[in-house]
Amino acid sequence: MILVLKENTQQNQIDNLITWLKSMGVETHLSVGKYQTILGLVGDTSVVDEDLLQGLEFVESVKRIQEPFKNANRKFHPDDTIVEVGGSRIGGGYFQVIAGPCSVESEEQICTIAEEVKKAGATMLRGGAFKPRTSPYAFQGMRAEGLKLLLKAKEKTGLPIVTEIMDASHLPLFEDVDVIQVGARNMQNFELLKELGHIRKPILLKRGLANTIQELLMSAEYIMAGGNEQVILCERGIRTFETYTRNTLDLSAIPVIKELSHLPVIVDPSHATGIARMVRPMSLAAAAAGADGLIIEVHNDPPHAKCDGPQSITPDAFASLTKELNQILPVVGKKEIAL
Amino acid sequence: MILVLKENTQQNQIDNLITWLKSMGVETHLSVGKYQTILGLVGDTSVVDEDLLQGLEFVESVKRIQEPFKNANRKFHPDDTIVEVGGSRIGGGYFQVIAGPCSVESEEQICTIAEEVKKAGATMLRGGAFKPRTSPYAFQGMRAEGLKLLLKAKEKTGLPIVTEIMDASHLPLFEDVDVIQVGARNMQNFELLKELGHIRKPILLKRGLANTIQELLMSAEYIMAGGNEQVILCERGIRTFETYTRNTLDLSAIPVIKELSHLPVIVDPSHATGIARMVRPMSLAAAAAGADGLIIEVHNDPPHAKCDGPQSITPDAFASLTKELNQILPVVGKKEIAL
Amino acid sequence: MILVLKENTQQNQIDNLITWLKSMGVETHLSVGKYQTILGLVGDTSVVDEDLLQGLEFVESVKRIQEPFKNANRKFHPDDTIVEVGGSRIGGGYFQVIAGPCSVESEEQICTIAEEVKKAGATMLRGGAFKPRTSPYAFQGMRAEGLKLLLKAKEKTGLPIVTEIMDASHLPLFEDVDVIQVGARNMQNFELLKELGHIRKPILLKRGLANTIQELLMSAEYIMAGGNEQVILCERGIRTFETYTRNTLDLSAIPVIKELSHLPVIVDPSHATGIARMVRPMSLAAAAAGADGLIIEVHNDPPHAKCDGPQSITPDAFASLTKELNQILPVVGKKEIAL
Amino acid sequence: MILVLKENTQQNQIDNLITWLKSMGVETHLSVGKYQTILGLVGDTSVVDEDLLQGLEFVESVKRIQEPFKNANRKFHPDDTIVEVGGSRIGGGYFQVIAGPCSVESEEQICTIAEEVKKAGATMLRGGAFKPRTSPYAFQGMRAEGLKLLLKAKEKTGLPIVTEIMDASHLPLFEDVDVIQVGARNMQNFELLKELGHIRKPILLKRGLANTIQELLMSAEYIMAGGNEQVILCERGIRTFETYTRNTLDLSAIPVIKELSHLPVIVDPSHATGIARMVRPMSLAAAAAGADGLIIEVHNDPPHAKCDGPQSITPDAFASLTKELNQILPVVGKKEIAL
Repeated sequence: MILVLKENTQQNQIDNLITWLKSMGVETHLSVGKYQTILGLVGDTSVVDEDLLQGLEFVESVKRIQEPFKNANRKFHPDDTIVEVGGSRIGGGYFQVIAGPCSVESEEQICTIAEEVKKAGATMLRGGAFKPRTSPYAFQGMRAEGLKLLLKAKEKTGLPIVTEIMDASHLPLFEDVDVIQVGARNMQNFELLKELGHIRKPILLKRGLANTIQELLMSAEYIMAGGNEQVILCERGIRTFETYTRNTLDLSAIPVIKELSHLPVIVDPSHATGIARMVRPMSLAAAAAGADGLIIEVHNDPPHAKCDGPQSITPDAFASLTKELNQILPVVGKKEIAL
Repeated sequence: MILVLKENTQQNQIDNLITWLKSMGVETHLSVGKYQTILGLVGDTSVVDEDLLQGLEFVESVKRIQEPFKNANRKFHPDDTIVEVGGSRIGGGYFQVIAGPCSVESEEQICTIAEEVKKAGATMLRGGAFKPRTSPYAFQGMRAEGLKLLLKAKEKTGLPIVTEIMDASHLPLFEDVDVIQVGARNMQNFELLKELGHIRKPILLKRGLANTIQELLMSAEYIMAGGNEQVILCERGIRTFETYTRNTLDLSAIPVIKELSHLPVIVDPSHATGIARMVRPMSLAAAAAGADGLIIEVHNDPPHAKCDGPQSITPDAFASLTKELNQILPVVGKKEIAL
Repeated sequence: MILVLKENTQQNQIDNLITWLKSMGVETHLSVGKYQTILGLVGDTSVVDEDLLQGLEFVESVKRIQEPFKNANRKFHPDDTIVEVGGSRIGGGYFQVIAGPCSVESEEQICTIAEEVKKAGATMLRGGAFKPRTSPYAFQGMRAEGLKLLLKAKEKTGLPIVTEIMDASHLPLFEDVDVIQVGARNMQNFELLKELGHIRKPILLKRGLANTIQELLMSAEYIMAGGNEQVILCERGIRTFETYTRNTLDLSAIPVIKELSHLPVIVDPSHATGIARMVRPMSLAAAAAGADGLIIEVHNDPPHAKCDGPQSITPDAFASLTKELNQILPVVGKKEIAL
Repeated sequence: MILVLKENTQQNQIDNLITWLKSMGVETHLSVGKYQTILGLVGDTSVVDEDLLQGLEFVESVKRIQEPFKNANRKFHPDDTIVEVGGSRIGGGYFQVIAGPCSVESEEQICTIAEEVKKAGATMLRGGAFKPRTSPYAFQGMRAEGLKLLLKAKEKTGLPIVTEIMDASHLPLFEDVDVIQVGARNMQNFELLKELGHIRKPILLKRGLANTIQELLMSAEYIMAGGNEQVILCERGIRTFETYTRNTLDLSAIPVIKELSHLPVIVDPSHATGIARMVRPMSLAAAAAGADGLIIEVHNDPPHAKCDGPQSITPDAFASLTKELNQILPVVGKKEIAL
């Protein structure tokens, strides 16, 4: 971190600042110029509150050189984190496909789809029980009842389940859930993130619609600072001016996250594009870009799905896709999906 | 709402759809063309789930003509809603200024500032107790302790208080709070919005950083659908490519919201710009654009504020500002601030 | 400008760099730390090519402290630039309203509107002869013929004219035009900007739809670097996710530009919002924010305007507006419009 | 196209509108409802000016059902367009890699790089002679001299050349250039596009930084409307809030463009990311997403490149990349690069 100090800053102001910074374990490095005085901060500057420094009257500007995250930072953890879910590994060369319907609708629906996607190579089952919807009048999910049906599908197929939490007060209902998903709209629900830092279960953290990669990593940091190191990041499209696709899938986020962090990162092509026929090309592209996995919406009857039908692919299309993925994965040094 | 149906749609598919729509109280109006068949939906279409219709295999596209919100819609409530807080009215020609520090820091700080801003024309006191911060290592607010100090300031000055809630589970702590604020990052925390629909207290709902006006109104609709009609909307800047200001204040949102909704709308120039010296021009501009009020950060010692110091103005600057506002307000048909 | 050098940078690499920088008149200031070496550049760094420095293998990062523009920079020209057009001054406390139709359509149309807006306080006439249109099948303007009609209106009313140029090769046609407008889509048409730097006529430079304020000032710098100091900047709305208004008017750009630059800045509420009924509130807000003027679309018959009818106001609405503006202008230290 | 007419629209207004639309060859289809009257327009509606209809006082809203482009539209040209350049085909299953330095710097530089990239599988040479730069003080390219050096490299290696034009008046200099590039900032320089419609040479049209896919296709339409059907589209990253990469590569644009248009589409991973080490993963992802080719910056000495060094890869890295691409291309039905 570099502080540019204003002209005429008093020596005692500088001394006080340096003493305070040292008390936090940060070394400083002062260079006094004719027009500007620069104070370099060296060490673990993630503990330093940037806004607070910016607020000091003699500070002209604050520029971070190092990232403000620590637990999620590859510099301090050079090796890839591998998250294990029900015997499947994700990260570090292991690629997994999570599949299932947008919403749980009935026992028959979720169990049928679970069996189909398992056959086609999926190693985890997704399915929404609590659904964040823009309109209070839209279907809000089967909620607690939906979670029960997911657990039935898990029982039948052995597939671990991934489902979204919308409020920390629902945590008791999620005890048998294998991976808890934080949706894009809750990426900066900091109270929820803090609670998830205190449990010992993998968290699937989706990038917010208008959030930067650094903000995503800061949200992972919230969870990890609480002691929960099992975070799987998910790129699911960001808001841009393009209207043909629902959002714009930022695949360059994959190599960027790989460079900045050791956490596994997967891609959600279904929500990103909102269009079933874009799922295949974007899945192949995600794999080629180095993603550690995919989360894909599959529905046995897309036109009658209760929500997000237009973005769900059929079990058959899903089965073809996993075969094609297996042709791409070895090119980028990933293990193939077991089919 | 207009549905464009695909060529070759079967008559029985159309009939079933029409029957189902009628069962929800929506009238339909079919026009069969050579190339396209168009089904117009008339009546209260806010109950219709757009995604569900889009998911039908014979539907080519769905286009809303009417807004998907109802309680917040001016069409159904032509008169301005006036929200009363501690004797002050906001909306319907009444303009109020809410002022106070970003964060509550100490009893002395909050009480001093409260007295100063009251003298200068503020009719409500703002102050953060629970603070949403991007970094888990940044100051998170005094939390419950901060709420107590706010209530002491209220006791001393008589100013009603406005403060942010970050999680529905904190609601019991907010019993004596006058206006509960929902921050930009929680604008689509739907579980929180639902809970706030069940209380009977004004809610100050801030627009999300990348949300449209319609999405803001849909979030207000969540609160209102629960029975709480006292919602004050707040424009606080949106994310754009401009980096000089923290966000970009969208003042055209004011007349747009006034046209679409009957709810009062205020402006937060402090968070929008992040720069103290932009607060005055943006406050005057907000008043000229027709806002019903302002929420402004005032700190007696901005350089030493625990957060957001650079965007806080001094009590003196605040006092000058309210005088200038009183020169603008009559031009746009608003009552002057009592000074 | 601050260069952060990589660890293990060789002394001779640093020496060569310093020698080269000195040859451009830039002083340097080296501070060698344990982990990082920082090279501060002092003086006129606008001549330094940031990308070139970034490309050096031993440079980790380049951070600008000073703005990369010079002629447009208030630091080097503390006094407001006042641009004179046909006896009217804009900037430095002088506020002007430019008005007229989106497109020139006929001699009668342009002359009638010119007379009406002149009566209502406009001191310049706008009117598009060359029209940038997204579709090749849309009306492209009357082109050279339109310029002739504008000059007729000027002859009749004495109003100086403002009209858009789309290609440098058209410059000979613009000889009698008073102010040449560069449209938003051409803000970074650098070859055109260079040509406009060689003429001696005021240029009205519109901000691009997705450009930052700094980029706008860099485009002004292109014109000024060629010797033409008479640049009027124009905020006309930027692209955001909001769809209700055509673009989002960034009024905070006004005080920001005033701080960074000495050039006058005006606002175009008609193109920014695309909605006639938003022109009044946004015009008043722009004046309150400190703008030096407005450019407003006025049409005697908006529903039949050949383009942009929905955003044009009538001469009567325009006349009411200038009266209201005169109530706002004195509050912010501007001279009133002569009515 | 669907027009929603206001209540109380007069019959004669409707009749006049229908007569006028018929005169342009557009059929209409009226359906009168209790609350709303809807007029459907059928046929080639690309000739209809949407703004003009929107401007009619009795029109409430205009909604396009069909795309406003025609020559670029796959509906009217179902087969892929294949563009031939110097014996190489691009589109329709043929994949080409264009490579070379950002800027032409010297005869030796351009010829050396040309030979290297040719050996590694490139079939066209790129190199900037006219360089659009944000700052007037940055290196502007060797201009006419640079074009001569490109032609020397073509002579030596036989590689056709691709280079950017910045102004229509430079066209005479481009007579021996094989593919003329229109840069992102000129995507809506409509006068330039019109000129390029009159020549008979392939045009490489880059998507603007904040433009939608439809706007890109409308710009292609400008060129094609002039009679030049050889347009290659290029996705080169769009502006988003992400700052780690220079822009955000929108790879979902590939399948979207393939669906909407018959034109070939290539990807520029170098400008999109601005980071050399992101070029490989993004190139592989682009191929997997179905792109028809790539345009990649290769420099024999990236740290000393005159511009954009940080985003250029070395010839060796380029040679490895083309080998990897050949493992991806057959998976998505493309012919391999001849190595």
